[in-house]
Amino acid sequence: MNINIMLFDDFETLDAFGPVEILSRIPSHVLKYYSMAGGIVTSAQGMKIETESICTANQNGTLVVPGGRGTRALVNDEKFLACLKTMGEKAVFCLSICTGSALLARAGLLNDKKATSNKKAFVWVMSTSDKVKWLKNARWVVDEKFYTSSGVSAGMDMTLGFVSDQYGVDNARQIAQDIEYIWHADKEQDSFAVKEG
Amino acid sequence: MNINIMLFDDFETLDAFGPVEILSRIPSHVLKYYSMAGGIVTSAQGMKIETESICTANQNGTLVVPGGRGTRALVNDEKFLACLKTMGEKAVFCLSICTGSALLARAGLLNDKKATSNKKAFVWVMSTSDKVKWLKNARWVVDEKFYTSSGVSAGMDMTLGFVSDQYGVDNARQIAQDIEYIWHADKEQDSFAVKEG
Repeated sequence: MNINIMLFDDFETLDAFGPVEILSRIPSHVLKYYSMAGGIVTSAQGMKIETESICTANQNGTLVVPGGRGTRALVNDEKFLACLKTMGEKAVFCLSICTGSALLARAGLLNDKKATSNKKAFVWVMSTSDKVKWLKNARWVVDEKFYTSSGVSAGMDMTLGFVSDQYGVDNARQIAQDIEYIWHADKEQDSFAVKEG
Repeated sequence: MNINIMLFDDFETLDAFGPVEILSRIPSHVLKYYSMAGGIVTSAQGMKIETESICTANQNGTLVVPGGRGTRALVNDEKFLACLKTMGEKAVFCLSICTGSALLARAGLLNDKKATSNKKAFVWVMSTSDKVKWLKNARWVVDEKFYTSSGVSAGMDMTLGFVSDQYGVDNARQIAQDIEYIWHADKEQDSFAVKEG
């Protein structure tokens, strides 16, 4: 399966590369790194990574969308959102991490669906779309082919959950063991849940 | 403080970018990505990242050394090890993740020091130096300026421990909260400890 990782300037490093670490451990996965125009993309942590243009991607696969402060501009970027909508519609699965779900929401991909996001940025995320059933208390949320996680680190728990759903819990547990990761496997148990509101 | 991240082909992605996510959240930290020759380095997960030549680094800072399958060749690369020795000696602190400690060990930086490493690769790591006091049961180990972590994900717990030691536990807890990370703060509690041998 193609794993298409959609990057942009000021994406949050761990949002993308926690899930990448896990997804890479399924032998049938082929990971590729994309951006709108291709070329060098710089993460919020100053890391410069080479990407290919999203136009060249095989859309038949799993789309991974990180969050980060770069999403603040992209929620108003019509060209980006149109591209994301096409990619998201054609994807077999679509995983977002942190404020990546704001991008999916603005692209209309999460209309009438349950989703979650970063808990510190939750008010802003909710403001990006009133068509989404935003869940304030969830480590991650699954609604049909859409997986959305809470902030940053929650992406790793969600990705193991995705592996468990698609390849069995034993595979997920083995990957967690291999990377010495203590998996928080209950998606409804959220230590960082939004308490107010 | 300069945070000098030493990369090489086939480094393990999360080894480097878990700690990067945490270290970037201390405002005084300046993160830079290096390799021996500079230019593009490819992680074990196929991610291509731009680096500067280590020759250009300000050595007065914290050195971060990931592990990964790339270490298998580097433990016999005299030029790399000589460079690492110089960098490690001049560094204020030196953090290794996973099999990164095998590189520090081969460079002679861990002689007579306590250290740990990836638990699945522990027999190999121990074979790289008999001058190190290898600890089989530790999430991470601190010996003077050297911090060494267990496999992959343990690097995040160690880096929060490093932040706690240098900037106070409240700062470490705040970063964990901000990235929605469930911090395993006890360095002596190791779910993945080597049982045999």
